[in-house]
Amino acid sequence: MNSSKTTSLLTTAHNYTSLGRRVVIIKPAVDTRSGPTSVTSRCGLSQQADVVIGPNDAIDIPDVESVACILVDEVQFLSPVQVDQLRQLTRHAPVITYGLRTDSQVRLFPGSMRMLEVADSIEEVKMICSECTKKSTVNARYYLREDGTKQIVYDAEQIAIGGEDMYYALCFSCWDKMR
Amino acid sequence: MNSSKTTSLLTTAHNYTSLGRRVVIIKPAVDTRSGPTSVTSRCGLSQQADVVIGPNDAIDIPDVESVACILVDEVQFLSPVQVDQLRQLTRHAPVITYGLRTDSQVRLFPGSMRMLEVADSIEEVKMICSECTKKSTVNARYYLREDGTKQIVYDAEQIAIGGEDMYYALCFSCWDKMR
Amino acid sequence: MNSSKTTSLLTTAHNYTSLGRRVVIIKPAVDTRSGPTSVTSRCGLSQQADVVIGPNDAIDIPDVESVACILVDEVQFLSPVQVDQLRQLTRHAPVITYGLRTDSQVRLFPGSMRMLEVADSIEEVKMICSECTKKSTVNARYYLREDGTKQIVYDAEQIAIGGEDMYYALCFSCWDKMR
Amino acid sequence: MNSSKTTSLLTTAHNYTSLGRRVVIIKPAVDTRSGPTSVTSRCGLSQQADVVIGPNDAIDIPDVESVACILVDEVQFLSPVQVDQLRQLTRHAPVITYGLRTDSQVRLFPGSMRMLEVADSIEEVKMICSECTKKSTVNARYYLREDGTKQIVYDAEQIAIGGEDMYYALCFSCWDKMR
Repeated sequence: MNSSKTTSLLTTAHNYTSLGRRVVIIKPAVDTRSGPTSVTSRCGLSQQADVVIGPNDAIDIPDVESVACILVDEVQFLSPVQVDQLRQLTRHAPVITYGLRTDSQVRLFPGSMRMLEVADSIEEVKMICSECTKKSTVNARYYLREDGTKQIVYDAEQIAIGGEDMYYALCFSCWDKMR
Repeated sequence: MNSSKTTSLLTTAHNYTSLGRRVVIIKPAVDTRSGPTSVTSRCGLSQQADVVIGPNDAIDIPDVESVACILVDEVQFLSPVQVDQLRQLTRHAPVITYGLRTDSQVRLFPGSMRMLEVADSIEEVKMICSECTKKSTVNARYYLREDGTKQIVYDAEQIAIGGEDMYYALCFSCWDKMR
Repeated sequence: MNSSKTTSLLTTAHNYTSLGRRVVIIKPAVDTRSGPTSVTSRCGLSQQADVVIGPNDAIDIPDVESVACILVDEVQFLSPVQVDQLRQLTRHAPVITYGLRTDSQVRLFPGSMRMLEVADSIEEVKMICSECTKKSTVNARYYLREDGTKQIVYDAEQIAIGGEDMYYALCFSCWDKMR
Repeated sequence: MNSSKTTSLLTTAHNYTSLGRRVVIIKPAVDTRSGPTSVTSRCGLSQQADVVIGPNDAIDIPDVESVACILVDEVQFLSPVQVDQLRQLTRHAPVITYGLRTDSQVRLFPGSMRMLEVADSIEEVKMICSECTKKSTVNARYYLREDGTKQIVYDAEQIAIGGEDMYYALCFSCWDKMR
């Protein structure tokens, strides 16, 4: 599900660094799909994170005054306390975070919830519904039935790291209709 | 705090009704500032709500198939269950809801939280910070000190119905700095 | 066609003045529908313009340093030179302009064209198509046929001041299909 | 200047094709920077265009009914007539175009002008000002002085194909101040 979001993050990073400005890329340790420290988009772009944040780490950025922009990938995996730390960092540099609003059961992640509370501005990165190609908002979890078709899981734990083999984008209506 | 939001709602209602289309305006019963059934914006526009929803009411719209648009004021006061009922109503007509994201302590209202989870699209109605005139996101609660200046309340119950005498708009930075 | 735009302008003005800030409301002299100096929205809100600009006037705002926001109604009727003067005024205060993108033949007004060139930010005030209630972008000109139905005019002068008796909102597809 | 725009285009293409849907990528023949038929973003993504349009070509898409999305790069280089052809294609599939609003003198390109007239929806792809890192809107043309600093060209032909060696992003204020 991270093609558009991570591509946006890496493009923004590129825009700053091509001007000779310093960016700091942060990722949560729990997201190990592309290795412990790499930020990788499905379309092939990749870069090393500058800071990898464990579940109980405080976010600390050395020499933050020299930073032009702080970029956070998969922010839904940060804790509310860590999001509050990001909020305080906006005193020094703009902080742009990318993440999922909701889990596969259409419930806010705790980190996304805190982001929605304290963000100065909210923007959608558009994805398309795998069924109807309208704008998707649901990151549905599924497993493959024996006949190769997808069975959506309407009851799942909130965090289970996976890619296209576990999740696919749906609009709320298609997700709801497939119950 | 409701000038821009309710004005937007009433303008949208006007746009539909001037085309001869039927709109349904819904308000929560808890919001009694302008009387039990009136939807009133601070700049003077006013209209009767078609449906007033109590805390445990199911949202029921007679002849919903003839409705061109459902408009909800102060959606933050609805329960998550009621928001789910609105979500189901989108099968019949577009539903546009207006409300506060967060309370005076910058915490999501339960109704706003459910809206942020299930909305197809999120748009900001812009207000300006009473201190710096940048975009505001915080609906701060205050009381007047004896010298007439405002003391912000950083610890308050979530729901206390009031107008400009109790709340004023701030950006997060100003709200945070005034602690 | 000006219900939503002028209502937005007047709401923004209200938001500033209720904080004790000074706004300056500008309107072009050519728009005389609600009298020479009044800025009036279809839903009933109204206020006097502070500055009325004739076709060849230079835009001059006395004591501009004390202004919190400059608001311009019907900006499509200003000349490109006047829009450049507004652009220069942004050195002193934010300038927010409201207007139509295109005329009834879906061609940019010269003032709108210059606005689209020099604006820092472009936002849509949404109207609905009178035929299909999707988002409208065309301000179609029509006359009533003898049977009371509307005949769209696909060949008209650019400026002809009128209200709902001459113009109605359509989406491009409906406007195009009715040819 | 094309990093963000072309990356967005290629990401959208990827989102559709990964669902097994057919997209058609169109580019103008005049843009030969990355070869005659390649659509390439500065951050390294690249793909072949399906259709390359010469200045007087009619836009023709075989079997358009099977297309899920039409994507156009550098739309500012199409003629208004070609933009009208794209507008007609929206009867069959959504058309998303990416391009510059204005040339290096902050004047609309004819193709961009027609796009702004007939588009159902306008969205900004954000770039940052090379001087102040605020949002940029100007694609400034420059040459290097002998001392290695940049001299902006405030009087130039509209179309001159180049990359970072000829153009850089500025906000209007910085561009205007450097006169």
